[in-house]
Formats: sequence, structure tokens, C-alpha cells
Amino acid sequence: MTQFSASQIADMEQRYRATFINSLGGFKSVVLVGTVDGQGVTNLAIFNSLFHLGANPPLWGLVFRPDTVERHTLSNIEYTGYYTLNHLTDKMYEQAHQTSARYPKGESEFKATGLTPEFWEYFPAPFVAESPIRFAMEMREKIPLDLNGTILLIGQIKHVLLPDHVLQPDGFVDLEKAGSLTCSGLDSYHRTQRIARLSYAKPDSWPQEIPVIG
Amino acid sequence: MTQFSASQIADMEQRYRATFINSLGGFKSVVLVGTVDGQGVTNLAIFNSLFHLGANPPLWGLVFRPDTVERHTLSNIEYTGYYTLNHLTDKMYEQAHQTSARYPKGESEFKATGLTPEFWEYFPAPFVAESPIRFAMEMREKIPLDLNGTILLIGQIKHVLLPDHVLQPDGFVDLEKAGSLTCSGLDSYHRTQRIARLSYAKPDSWPQEIPVIG
Repeated sequence: MTQFSASQIADMEQRYRATFINSLGGFKSVVLVGTVDGQGVTNLAIFNSLFHLGANPPLWGLVFRPDTVERHTLSNIEYTGYYTLNHLTDKMYEQAHQTSARYPKGESEFKATGLTPEFWEYFPAPFVAESPIRFAMEMREKIPLDLNGTILLIGQIKHVLLPDHVLQPDGFVDLEKAGSLTCSGLDSYHRTQRIARLSYAKPDSWPQEIPVIG
Repeated sequence: MTQFSASQIADMEQRYRATFINSLGGFKSVVLVGTVDGQGVTNLAIFNSLFHLGANPPLWGLVFRPDTVERHTLSNIEYTGYYTLNHLTDKMYEQAHQTSARYPKGESEFKATGLTPEFWEYFPAPFVAESPIRFAMEMREKIPLDLNGTILLIGQIKHVLLPDHVLQPDGFVDLEKAGSLTCSGLDSYHRTQRIARLSYAKPDSWPQEIPVIG
């Protein structure tokens, strides 16, 4: 085993430490966040910090760092109040990754990377047409963290679009069947292979496998 | 495509909605959180809400819902100030899942599930001996969310333990080589298969693959 103390981590070169710490917590959700600015210019940015906050109301959190290209996304969300979340597949993960380049304000990452913006009724943010699972979000709360200057943005799901065949009878969405990817660290993209779904745990029995249909 | 509006989501049966919403955001980090209470009884609980907050200082967040068995974990962390985070593998994911059963206070999930507590020097929280990647955490901040009564707990990494062969020259931790799993929804466990690591994105070039060594 290799060990790292807090002081060894503090002494790491900055980019080495960012790569190291970002990898440690495990595989992560990775999504494209779609927005528009006040001039109607579309923006698309990749995030690996989405986290579930609750199902009723359906809330998800996103972490914004103050010193990155994500600022366009945050200012657009604050201006319009809305954004979309779009899953990645192995057909477009390179384009998705490329959205993290520092394109000048006014240049849409959709155009720069070749991904297709798709508007749904009157919702004021673009979906990614190539994405199998997409949902529309409304901003609910912005929480600045004094500890390190990051901002937690909490949003509520307004609308969900997904392929018919991925929804299981109990409400489970089969992300693997949809082709959704996961990521690790800052730049590693992965397919998944299910081991099992397990039944609700009770103290007096052992979990059983829940079959996944289709 | 299947569509769900906000009102259709609000009308879903409660457990169906929890399963549906928990699945939507993509694959998630899944870890075992190890703590001790004031009597020295060990506690172990599975969480799929870990999120990266920053590398300097190295901070991770965890979401606690007020109405679950996770309360033991939260009260222990508040009492001692410390906890451990431990990755899952396909050798022990069933035991890890089983820690979510509502065991009575005073009964350790380590003993109930057969996982092995391991103490490291004077750190006041148990690691999981079967886990390949483990880190020690110090509580830094507790943020209650008025929106839905959940609590965000932010902690800082104090110590990291990982296998020698998973660390890449640039600080990237190869979770796949460590055998770490990901999860989706509330109960689905998955292995991963790397597609590629991609180089830092720049506006005037396309990302290149970063080779993973070993």
C-alpha cells in the first residue's frame, strides 16, 4: 500500500494534486449542462460534480468553481433561471470533453464541438440531441461555500426525456441500456457492466438480486 | 422517447419516484463511511452521494437525509469529528449494501455484515480492511438545506491509503485497476471498462488519448 498524509497532499504540485484528489472519491456522474445567455447564444459545459439531493421535490446539486470556464454556465443560469442536464455516450464523449476548452464568450460550444442543440417547447435552455437521457432544470438555490470559494447550485427537475426501453417497472432507469457513461478523475471516461441490482436491505435477511428486464 | 413532466413526477408513487429520480443523474460514487460512537461501537454505512468540492484543501461533500439510518453516521461524525471513506469491490458489494439495513443502535454493521474494521494509528474511525482505496476524513462544515431538510457535510482528507500499482505518474488514480465499483439508482452495482483518458481541452485542438500505464 502507498500512503499519503495531509502534509504530503498539501506539498503536491498543483496539477498533480488536482488530478489525484479528483480521482480518489470514485466514479462520478458526468453530464453536459446546456444554457443560453441574454443574447440567446447557447452554451454547453461538461460537469462531473452532479449529486442527488432528494426525490420529493426532485433536486440535484452542481458544484461551480470560481476560476473556470464554468462561469459562463453559472451566469447564464442566474440570468435565465434554467438549464438542461444531458448524459454522455461513447459516440460523443470526445465532443463532450472538448466543451471544457476556454472558447471565447459569444462562441457556442455546440458549434465548436459539433453537438446539436435541441429546444423543447418554450424551455429556455438547449438540450443535446445526441444525448439519450436529458432533463430540464429550474434553479432553486445558490450556496456559496466560504471554505474554498466554490458555489453549490441546487436545481429542481421540470421535465425528463428518456428512451422507452430503459425504464424498469419499479421506476429504475437502466443507464447502462441507455449507453450512459461514467467518469473518473478529470478526464477518464468509462462504460459500465452491471454486477447486480440488490433488494432493499433488512437486518434479518441477505439482499437478493432484482432482475433487470429487457 | 418517454417524457415526464414535473406534475407527473410529483404524482408518482413515493418509492417509484425515489427509484426514478435517484437513477436519473447518472452513475455515482459509492463508498462505505466508517465511524465510532461515544461508546466506541463501530458503525458502517453505504453512501452514494459523495461529491468532489476542491483539491486545495482536499474537500469532499456527503448528503445526509434526516429520516434514515444514516443518522447514526452523522451523530458519530459530529461527536468525534472524524470518519473514513472506503471504496467497494465486487468481492464485498453485497456486504456493503447490507450495511443499509436498520440494525439497532449498539450493533455494529461490521459485525452484522462480516466486513473487517481496521484502525490506523490514533485515527478515531475504522477503515474497511477489504477496501482497496480508503481515506481518513475530518469534518469541516455542516450545511442544513431548508429546501428539503437534507444536510450537507463537508470534510477534508487527512490521510490516503491505496495500492501501489494504481497511481499513475501524473497523480491519476486508476480506480478500475483498484477494482472500485460504481452504482446507479439506489441499488445497482457496476464494474467499469475504460474508453479513454483525454488530454486537457484547448480551443484550437482536439483532445488526445492519455495512455494509462501498467
